Amino acid sequence: MVGIGPGGPLDRTRRAEQAIAQSQLVVGYDRYLDLIQDLTAGKELVSSGMTQEVERCRAALASARDGKVVALVSSGDPGVYGMAGLAIELAAAEGFSVPIEIVPGVSAANAAAAKLGAPLMLDFACISLSDLLVPWEVIRQRLDAVAAADLVVALYNPRSQKRVKQLDEAQAIFRRHRPGATPVGIGTAVGTDEERIVLSDLDRFLAEDIGMKSVVVIGNRSSRRIAGWLVTPRGYQI
Amino acid sequence: MVGIGPGGPLDRTRRAEQAIAQSQLVVGYDRYLDLIQDLTAGKELVSSGMTQEVERCRAALASARDGKVVALVSSGDPGVYGMAGLAIELAAAEGFSVPIEIVPGVSAANAAAAKLGAPLMLDFACISLSDLLVPWEVIRQRLDAVAAADLVVALYNPRSQKRVKQLDEAQAIFRRHRPGATPVGIGTAVGTDEERIVLSDLDRFLAEDIGMKSVVVIGNRSSRRIAGWLVTPRGYQI
Repeated sequence: MVGIGPGGPLDRTRRAEQAIAQSQLVVGYDRYLDLIQDLTAGKELVSSGMTQEVERCRAALASARDGKVVALVSSGDPGVYGMAGLAIELAAAEGFSVPIEIVPGVSAANAAAAKLGAPLMLDFACISLSDLLVPWEVIRQRLDAVAAADLVVALYNPRSQKRVKQLDEAQAIFRRHRPGATPVGIGTAVGTDEERIVLSDLDRFLAEDIGMKSVVVIGNRSSRRIAGWLVTPRGYQI
Repeated sequence: MVGIGPGGPLDRTRRAEQAIAQSQLVVGYDRYLDLIQDLTAGKELVSSGMTQEVERCRAALASARDGKVVALVSSGDPGVYGMAGLAIELAAAEGFSVPIEIVPGVSAANAAAAKLGAPLMLDFACISLSDLLVPWEVIRQRLDAVAAADLVVALYNPRSQKRVKQLDEAQAIFRRHRPGATPVGIGTAVGTDEERIVLSDLDRFLAEDIGMKSVVVIGNRSSRRIAGWLVTPRGYQI
């Protein structure tokens, strides 16, 4: 279970590169395999579409049970909205007694934050607006709780072509607890050639181009713009 | 501003290694400089103690203004309880117009989660129990909000030799919202030779050896132990 970070080769840890190099079979979504072509020459590859996580994971585990060293590749960190948990669950459910190592990576929120400035400098929450696997009512309550507690939030999967209402509702929830001028940062496709970094505010950010490759960071009452960056000061006396 | 991950060389990204290699001056806490000795031969080094963040950061910026390429090194991710925000704030406050790049790293919570299993699989919060820079009353309210909203939480700086009450109170807050059998994981000095990984539960984890190098992950109502791992299932049908 190998996390390769959000973008290209520079985002990978040494352990991630080592784990892929040591593997015989590399399994992952097509786009992730494209990102690691420099590491996979001569290896067996199994790629699949985005929504076939369970099949992809089962295939990886079955090959590992049969004796292969397998790298199951995730972008970002496989432990955050990735497939690390599914691998553990499936191995137990199917009785595959194989050694599993989870190689963490830089998650999309951390990568976006670094390009925006330092918005996640202290306490923050990560919340996904995708309601495919979690009921919207649960997500809505979480948004309300973190908005009220003045936590900075990083929103994963903020908007897709078919799903736009959730981000509108998230904005309305935060607007009830925070001023319209609260800074908001948007990092899209961070670390790739299509990277876009935008600074906006709570009243206006919905007008920006936001998609499934975006992370939306909503600041708290301390967050502010400094010299073109978005920063949540940690409280040092300077 | 370079994050080197939580532990040894395997935790670093390629960009972090490149940024240090390209620098002329490397500035950081003594222990962090020890972790990157393989990268700093022949470079000018400035090390300092743990509580001299502002001085360290100012020295790094002053050298950059004087024309040096400087790597200011943080463990983990400099954007999460690190020094990225301080660097931006100080540069603006002192009028140092120097180009700043923030190189993200694997944060301690992500590294601990990978060793524990997959507890941060979906929505979670990171909260520091250190009340040096944030009033305890604010931290307490955040703990209560995330506990009520059934978010998994990763607690940074959970306990020090002088500061033990905060973790006791955090436990009591979570216990009001979650059963005593809720799984809790503790990752200490992850990625180093002193690494310790412990699984416990909400009623009993306070008895464990927990310090400033520990991250305590408190599961939510869905989190459970599977085959020796701590997992928060994402909700896939398997």
